[in-house]
Amino acid sequence: MAKDVKHSDQFGEPVAGNGLLHRRFFLQTGAAVAGAAAALGTARAESIGAVAPPQMLKPGGAFTGYGVPSHWRDNVQRIVTMNAPPGREVTGSSRTPLQMLEGTITPAGLHYVRNHNGTPDIDPSKHQLLIHGMVKQSLVFNLDSLLRYPLETRVHFMECAGNSGGMNAPMPPQATAGDIHGLLSCSEWTGVKLSTLLAEAGVDSKATWILAEGADGAGMSRSVPVWKAMDDAMIALYQNGEAIRPEQGFPMRLLLPGFEGNTNVKWIRRLKVIDTPMYTRDETSRYTELMPDGKAREFMLQMEPKSVILKPSFGMNMQGPGYYEISGLAWSGLGRVRRVDVSADGGKTWAEAALTTPVHSKALTRFRLPWMWNGGPVTLMSRTTDEKGQVQKTHADWAAQYAPRQNFHFSAIQSWAVAADGKVSNIYV
Amino acid sequence: MAKDVKHSDQFGEPVAGNGLLHRRFFLQTGAAVAGAAAALGTARAESIGAVAPPQMLKPGGAFTGYGVPSHWRDNVQRIVTMNAPPGREVTGSSRTPLQMLEGTITPAGLHYVRNHNGTPDIDPSKHQLLIHGMVKQSLVFNLDSLLRYPLETRVHFMECAGNSGGMNAPMPPQATAGDIHGLLSCSEWTGVKLSTLLAEAGVDSKATWILAEGADGAGMSRSVPVWKAMDDAMIALYQNGEAIRPEQGFPMRLLLPGFEGNTNVKWIRRLKVIDTPMYTRDETSRYTELMPDGKAREFMLQMEPKSVILKPSFGMNMQGPGYYEISGLAWSGLGRVRRVDVSADGGKTWAEAALTTPVHSKALTRFRLPWMWNGGPVTLMSRTTDEKGQVQKTHADWAAQYAPRQNFHFSAIQSWAVAADGKVSNIYV
Repeated sequence: MAKDVKHSDQFGEPVAGNGLLHRRFFLQTGAAVAGAAAALGTARAESIGAVAPPQMLKPGGAFTGYGVPSHWRDNVQRIVTMNAPPGREVTGSSRTPLQMLEGTITPAGLHYVRNHNGTPDIDPSKHQLLIHGMVKQSLVFNLDSLLRYPLETRVHFMECAGNSGGMNAPMPPQATAGDIHGLLSCSEWTGVKLSTLLAEAGVDSKATWILAEGADGAGMSRSVPVWKAMDDAMIALYQNGEAIRPEQGFPMRLLLPGFEGNTNVKWIRRLKVIDTPMYTRDETSRYTELMPDGKAREFMLQMEPKSVILKPSFGMNMQGPGYYEISGLAWSGLGRVRRVDVSADGGKTWAEAALTTPVHSKALTRFRLPWMWNGGPVTLMSRTTDEKGQVQKTHADWAAQYAPRQNFHFSAIQSWAVAADGKVSNIYV
Repeated sequence: MAKDVKHSDQFGEPVAGNGLLHRRFFLQTGAAVAGAAAALGTARAESIGAVAPPQMLKPGGAFTGYGVPSHWRDNVQRIVTMNAPPGREVTGSSRTPLQMLEGTITPAGLHYVRNHNGTPDIDPSKHQLLIHGMVKQSLVFNLDSLLRYPLETRVHFMECAGNSGGMNAPMPPQATAGDIHGLLSCSEWTGVKLSTLLAEAGVDSKATWILAEGADGAGMSRSVPVWKAMDDAMIALYQNGEAIRPEQGFPMRLLLPGFEGNTNVKWIRRLKVIDTPMYTRDETSRYTELMPDGKAREFMLQMEPKSVILKPSFGMNMQGPGYYEISGLAWSGLGRVRRVDVSADGGKTWAEAALTTPVHSKALTRFRLPWMWNGGPVTLMSRTTDEKGQVQKTHADWAAQYAPRQNFHFSAIQSWAVAADGKVSNIYV
């Protein structure tokens, strides 16, 4: 696509600054696009039809019991970050390489992991879940007894409260979207509604909180409001169709859709019904937000509306002026994403993106927008509005809520600068 | 749950024979259920809260770049069946162990595979896709150029035309649901709409078919109607969020939602637009249906409405009378599943099952129904009705359409007999 193409003639007027096209552009003007986009395909039908590539001349590989990705994609790996010195490689995280993925589901092997003392190896036949405290009758479940209950299947995202924390540094980190925002994944979860189990135990009407404890070496413990436990909480047993992975809590985890990841206690072994939060280490010394007045805000559990453009994003190089699809992920812990707007001029004008349907509640939602890049420098941004009407904040508005070095629940708009040479960098707007 | 429980008192009347309950049973009578189901949880709060299991006393495992299932689930593998003698282990299939999975998405590692000459190892930077024949301009695409086009993300099932063929044997196979019906999987696919590429090439108005050719050692070739190519066909590049797996066509496959698996040509390298079917080997000597008059019916490409109960199913043993959830998968190549009915009395009476929502078009749909088993022998069946009003056929009605040994497109109702001792067997009804 030559630089001098007047896209307004061929494609109709852009709907926002710097070449953003209407989200239904391809539906409306199919034929016109086809002609104009021809430079994307090579208009030379070589002898490809007649000359067989080498792998066609011999049998391929044999069948396997459990398949793996192509070795040509060995570079698609989680990004491991340690929070501890050598010898303590069990405290830290591994992030999902978001910019290398597509669609909305995260393959289980690339789901982010945040561990405080490693992934335990649990014999599922020995694992038990206790419900006790302010209940009519204490109950103990094992995997077999849980599987007798009605199951539910739902798609939900998971995001660490510390995700994107690096974006609150004085200078914008020059790192990939996965490095910055990859404590974020999305799965189809299947399990037993926690409300079913709690109804059977008989929760005291005065109960307000539930202590959730994991069976790992960290004994991860968090306090969960009873209202959430009775709403859409689940004891998840399956992830993307198969038994939940060890790194995600095998044989069972607490799933609190839209709540910060840490409260979705993995390897769940105990739920104690109580009438006050337990003030565990991970809800006092961590996972609280320091406010401007020096006080810490506790139990801000719901993840805010948020989005990130992945195509293009840091580390990618534009292939010259012409047609591109802007694509990314949007989500909200409060419910469904209602709309995502995209700007190519640093927030002056916005165009509504198309959303992959159906849009699930509290799930990653893929957004896409056609874009004709004219080759000049632009600033790309995306902004989520959820079904509660909550709108993703600007970097400045988000930061103004907190004390300067408060890094939890970072949910501000991500801006990528595209330079005239096609390089993409991270900027604060 | 004791045998003498009068469930009609505690749970309201069953809605169909042999204890089938209303699909909204748990929503309607939450509290009553809770009390009645208490036998499922153990009403003994042992010292589980105070005594830590061994894995809590030490750090767990370290982080990994790409995670794998628990070693406690090493038995969850695809079922490999060879169609050829030793030394030709590349012709055959591997089936999805459906009865070991839950939800609707199939993990890519357990997606069924039907290969005619093995899985080729393709360098994605060298792979090309040619569109030629009756077009204005022939075009060659590589992976990079395809990724410049608008992408779409959709959930669709894939089913081999030969799936469930064993069900046409004189005696019902005593084998697991995966052994019988496991040439069936479901993924979230992301790729480029084929209509976009064809519009760019400019399809001749007289064209009616497209030859699709794969880059494997079988040179798999099928004829595809132009109407389907222009409808919802896709060049799929991603599966469940990551690059499509080699066994599924890395770096790209043709996706024809709802069409028999074989036409969804993997490792797609060539699409030749023509005005007659090509009558390739795999649409003449195979993948045709022998009719009662001795003629073969060609190009029956759409998969019919179908379902299978997975819980309970062959190989499982009931744990005594009491509450169970019946659960299975339903699908149709014609569109959305509209409803699934379940019978526990061999088809005399039926109860409508609950469907996991949202129901995707041409996708596996999980159905569930609460059931109070009284401990007597019962015959379980499920029956899909799709949005076109097509209803899954009985075994006899299905077989009556064809010559006796015609095994393709088997889509009849699956019946499982539950004996008083809790054993589940496969029967023809």
